[in-house]
Amino acid sequence: MRDVAVIGIGETRIGELWDKSLRELGIEAGLKALQDAGVSGDEVGMLYVGNMSAGELINQEHIAPMIADYAGLDDIPAVRIESGGASGGMALAEGYMAVASGIDDIVVVGGAEKMTDVDDVIAKNILSSTADQEWEVVCGATFDSLHAMIAQYHMNKYRTTKEQLAEVIVKNHSNASKNPNAQYPREIPKKLVVNAPMVSDPLGMFDCAPLSDGGAAVVLCAADLVDSYEGKPVKIAGVGHGADHIAVHDRREIGTMKATRIAAEKAYDNAGIKPENIDFAEVHDNYSISEIMAIEDLGFFDKGEGGPATEKGKTALNSEISVNTSGGLKAKGQPVGAVGINQAVEAVIQLRDDAGDRQVEDAQYGMTHNVGGTGASAVVHIFERWSE
Amino acid sequence: MRDVAVIGIGETRIGELWDKSLRELGIEAGLKALQDAGVSGDEVGMLYVGNMSAGELINQEHIAPMIADYAGLDDIPAVRIESGGASGGMALAEGYMAVASGIDDIVVVGGAEKMTDVDDVIAKNILSSTADQEWEVVCGATFDSLHAMIAQYHMNKYRTTKEQLAEVIVKNHSNASKNPNAQYPREIPKKLVVNAPMVSDPLGMFDCAPLSDGGAAVVLCAADLVDSYEGKPVKIAGVGHGADHIAVHDRREIGTMKATRIAAEKAYDNAGIKPENIDFAEVHDNYSISEIMAIEDLGFFDKGEGGPATEKGKTALNSEISVNTSGGLKAKGQPVGAVGINQAVEAVIQLRDDAGDRQVEDAQYGMTHNVGGTGASAVVHIFERWSE
Repeated sequence: MRDVAVIGIGETRIGELWDKSLRELGIEAGLKALQDAGVSGDEVGMLYVGNMSAGELINQEHIAPMIADYAGLDDIPAVRIESGGASGGMALAEGYMAVASGIDDIVVVGGAEKMTDVDDVIAKNILSSTADQEWEVVCGATFDSLHAMIAQYHMNKYRTTKEQLAEVIVKNHSNASKNPNAQYPREIPKKLVVNAPMVSDPLGMFDCAPLSDGGAAVVLCAADLVDSYEGKPVKIAGVGHGADHIAVHDRREIGTMKATRIAAEKAYDNAGIKPENIDFAEVHDNYSISEIMAIEDLGFFDKGEGGPATEKGKTALNSEISVNTSGGLKAKGQPVGAVGINQAVEAVIQLRDDAGDRQVEDAQYGMTHNVGGTGASAVVHIFERWSE
Repeated sequence: MRDVAVIGIGETRIGELWDKSLRELGIEAGLKALQDAGVSGDEVGMLYVGNMSAGELINQEHIAPMIADYAGLDDIPAVRIESGGASGGMALAEGYMAVASGIDDIVVVGGAEKMTDVDDVIAKNILSSTADQEWEVVCGATFDSLHAMIAQYHMNKYRTTKEQLAEVIVKNHSNASKNPNAQYPREIPKKLVVNAPMVSDPLGMFDCAPLSDGGAAVVLCAADLVDSYEGKPVKIAGVGHGADHIAVHDRREIGTMKATRIAAEKAYDNAGIKPENIDFAEVHDNYSISEIMAIEDLGFFDKGEGGPATEKGKTALNSEISVNTSGGLKAKGQPVGAVGINQAVEAVIQLRDDAGDRQVEDAQYGMTHNVGGTGASAVVHIFERWSE
């Protein structure tokens, strides 16, 4: 197994992009990444595409060869990776493996999702398709309500408050206001979050991430070959997967996310570092409660301390640990299958010192944390500043 | 990179299995494979699941962790691989990479598809979702009519006849009659095939494979560890991917399948053998014309000789090369995302000498050939008899 670096990144703006189709999103991101890397298409060994819902939303399966084709890479084998919201992260892990193993020197890993101006009825239920249809959804549970149950449990057990949940959102919007690709690049007041219309108690409208259109891509390269290319490299120092029961009611304890804990442990072990070495993390904040739980389960704070830590500003930009500097799923946006790649793009931007107003100072290590469903799958990557 | 063996196989019967859900199909196949291998669940490093259409057909995405969970493997990271009809073969290639690279010692690769007693309207169009929605399907093209165009071209250019197409079907049904897991385990007369109601000229009803329910799984193991397990090993000697434009009208030449040719070349190269070394092949006969083209593009017969060779019985069981001994997609059945794994199961059965009445004598090498869409993606595996 050899070391792997990201040498190119690209992403579209995230939002309601009614003038762009899925393939256009994928192509824009992919070509930007190739250009950034200084890699030509015929050097690419394989294309991995993270996508969750093109079949359901636009009746297009087999999208990986389609995107490759329209990007002019019709000779490049392409495959789609799906694991609900963790599709992008899982695709990254597969691409990493292809390069680390020596099978390919260069691979492109992309993610793309088209979730607006599609069939409304399906779009409304699309996130629930990652929960257990036969045992949860058929009984009336929705993705929102399942997360609301998890939030209720966490609030009851650890005294987490609705104000603490709101602090997650306020912080992420503040970070997004410094990110030109974000769907909601603006600050919002805490009062607005707390008093917003209820979606599923205790989660209000602003506690929930949007459904978005967007694409993102990274170019991976064997570490010993990075000098042949222009793209400024960032090392992938660790990878870890975790899993759990698909249905919330089958889990032993819902105040912690087992899949996240296992994935993080493996990634730390893989990278040979500890939580205190991480300078910034892009965590899967599809709901406010999800970020609170993630920063606990990833080892940054003790269990039950996620809420108070957020309230005290310990996860703000350039504080104890900078969490979701990009704005996260909530404010940068949530093109579901692309999220894991959007996170990787942010990690690379930070470790290249290209983040401008949202730059984390002297960052050495960054983490990305991508979750599928309500927590049945999770994948964690650790990125490290390149040293010659 | 180390050698990889299949040490366990399992599959469900294929058919209209109205009493079985997707998860039950996946679990049945997976547990049979683990049992056959003599591997316990906690030894598995990763589960790869090939599936195309669970999102569209049963509104369930994120199916890999679901199947892992219900098989009692909720601690095992699981991911879904999709590449249209090549989903199973692509999943196998990813699993192979995980073991060959040294990341995992044991992985399970499964495929499952539930295509009957689901939404009829969607099911009718499900295959077309692997063609180009925006440039082919929107203009009225269907998966059947696209293959009919390809057939017309081949018949016009190479004088392939409707009788030769029918011989593919007669042979595959004859093979299926010896396969207890086949959906249509019975012989059919050539007259019936030729005179069947037309689907899209020149393809009649029997020229087209069915949509089926079914599951299949294999257990992969590092070659140097096979002695620790009961399962009789078969070596994976070569893997190759190929790609092409997604839309038929964009291809330079539609009488040959470029993706298949490239995938086969890579796999032969990888295994260090030539077409004449292959004793039997499971090829992607989703239409009769597909098998004719496959046996040419895989290098078994010259271009244009696929029809005459089939007519002369050169692809029959224990003739020049035994093609689709299982019955193929046409007669064994077509649970789309599982097909690539069903093919691998047949290859292992043959190379273990467990195929009974359909046994290929003295087989040393077998090939599986799995195609996505109308040929935008293809993946080829070469299997080799185990030598101590």
